[in-house]
Amino acid sequence: MSTLANRASETTMYREIHEFPRIIDSALSNLSQIQEIAEILKEKDFSTVQVLGRGTSGNASLFLKYLIEVKLGVLVADASPSTTSIYNSPIAMRNNLLIGMSQSGKSTDLVEFARTAIQSGAFFIAMTNDAQSPLAQLADHHIDLGVGPELAVAATKSYSSELLHAQLLVDAMSGEITPDGLAKESARVIDDALGRIIAATDLHVATDIVVLGRGYSLANALELSLKIKETSLVNVPANSTAEYLHGPIAALKEGSSVIFLSPTGQDYEVIAPTVERVRGITSKIYWIGSSEHCAPGEIFLGGSSINHESYSAVLDSTVLQLVANHCAVAKGLNPDAPQGLNKVTLTR
Amino acid sequence: MSTLANRASETTMYREIHEFPRIIDSALSNLSQIQEIAEILKEKDFSTVQVLGRGTSGNASLFLKYLIEVKLGVLVADASPSTTSIYNSPIAMRNNLLIGMSQSGKSTDLVEFARTAIQSGAFFIAMTNDAQSPLAQLADHHIDLGVGPELAVAATKSYSSELLHAQLLVDAMSGEITPDGLAKESARVIDDALGRIIAATDLHVATDIVVLGRGYSLANALELSLKIKETSLVNVPANSTAEYLHGPIAALKEGSSVIFLSPTGQDYEVIAPTVERVRGITSKIYWIGSSEHCAPGEIFLGGSSINHESYSAVLDSTVLQLVANHCAVAKGLNPDAPQGLNKVTLTR
Repeated sequence: MSTLANRASETTMYREIHEFPRIIDSALSNLSQIQEIAEILKEKDFSTVQVLGRGTSGNASLFLKYLIEVKLGVLVADASPSTTSIYNSPIAMRNNLLIGMSQSGKSTDLVEFARTAIQSGAFFIAMTNDAQSPLAQLADHHIDLGVGPELAVAATKSYSSELLHAQLLVDAMSGEITPDGLAKESARVIDDALGRIIAATDLHVATDIVVLGRGYSLANALELSLKIKETSLVNVPANSTAEYLHGPIAALKEGSSVIFLSPTGQDYEVIAPTVERVRGITSKIYWIGSSEHCAPGEIFLGGSSINHESYSAVLDSTVLQLVANHCAVAKGLNPDAPQGLNKVTLTR
Repeated sequence: MSTLANRASETTMYREIHEFPRIIDSALSNLSQIQEIAEILKEKDFSTVQVLGRGTSGNASLFLKYLIEVKLGVLVADASPSTTSIYNSPIAMRNNLLIGMSQSGKSTDLVEFARTAIQSGAFFIAMTNDAQSPLAQLADHHIDLGVGPELAVAATKSYSSELLHAQLLVDAMSGEITPDGLAKESARVIDDALGRIIAATDLHVATDIVVLGRGYSLANALELSLKIKETSLVNVPANSTAEYLHGPIAALKEGSSVIFLSPTGQDYEVIAPTVERVRGITSKIYWIGSSEHCAPGEIFLGGSSINHESYSAVLDSTVLQLVANHCAVAKGLNPDAPQGLNKVTLTR
């Protein structure tokens, strides 16, 4: 192991990423609470759902939005906390379910939004890492992320657990079966990615990077962008591959780096037009997810090979976290303590 | 006038931005169609709304989402076209209104999404610039953006008109009164901004820029980010001032440039914590909107002084377009024909 690899493996962020296989096992052996909540939600037959979250949890809530819309056919709105916190406007919540995600469960504007939503009739499920948090206490039902204390400022295991619990909740409602061997595959994904990321020696020097995903992997693309901003201090935009063609691709140059998040099980046709356009402009292309579309000269950073798109996206989340951790350390930064960030952000 | 100013005033983009005052006058003298549609929508009493758009129109649809949630108290979801185009999953549209925005009205995935939504029971309003477009033809009612042919590839007057028509539709439903003298104020905003932008001689050389807005001005922040990507080929991220504190601010450095979009009439308290944090890191700060919060040494680029936050945001849209046009020309680029972009983007 190189010195760099040694240093990258000494961060709290690194250790917390490695806890995910254990978190999966623990979640799968405690399914009864999720199943009970799923039964209640099925009975209530909500016509619309709102998802609520900021930062990392906001990205996880986007994953939940796709899952609910695709698997349950129910319309999902992304909550705008500012409608209540800035404009004092309570939205009518007729037959509405609100699902809020937050590691700490403390963000002031989320608590305020949830309180207003409940007052106007919403049923509220909170997913947090602290059953005593204000958000958890407000909820009709609380789903514990069960990751234990998260010490690194940049969220990792709590994000992966949010994706996992989103998936388990929607499975319990739709009757889908959890694929076998998830924890083992998660451990394999982490081990495999480590070596690949160490070998990809030029990613951390790139300053012009774009991250692209689509559908279930869009949340991971946004999260990788956020993790690189937080820990490597590089301003990296993220987009859906479809949106990217509607404008932002204009800024792509020869020599720009592009990271595609394409989970195993995704229909390649839906991202192929963007991949082809990107390949015509730059050759610096990285892949997280399936290794299948990685052309010679491009770099595969790792990902799950479970042929189930949304579960693969859940497991791929550790790869993007390892990439961010490694890039930060390679730049001489401490990913555990990004400048100017706090673990709990209180915004109005 | 400097040579640079001359060149910047010779673009099609520049001419099209200047058409907005005329478009306002024309829209205000044709209010009856909007009022009729508003009456129909009020009668139908929809419990939820979906907004649909990509790229520039996606940004305008976010403005519409805020307006409807705040002024009408109705929940608004941002439509995910991929749920139908990738995952083939029709979302149940019980008592749902879909409002789609598109300059061309031709994007394949938007048309497909609208068709699926209508089949599952949605009532559909399209806002496009072409009454014969596929999206317009599918609609229960079509609102014409009325901007005439838009020739520059980077959308300007169609975006401003989308914001305006969003505002007029919601006004017609909520009974709010349109402020007086809008077209005249728009012309003043454009003239005033021109001189200020020419004087801000270092914005176009910045490569590390962040754009921040909140509430009604978030759409303009996202649109400025997109316009700079499209025409100046610089990867500029945009965020809400609240989200920015939840992570991305870590990447802000001394010497980074920050553009705040803060319309007249906005409660300064809601952005103040972010402004203060940013001022502690960098002094390169620009303002679009109200001049009130621009401290000595910071640069005011222009904006409406109407004391009505959402209308001010509508008028401020021309300022961000003028900034993008000027930066592109100052960089020696042709903003009318960005590399690798087409006027109509066909994505699945």
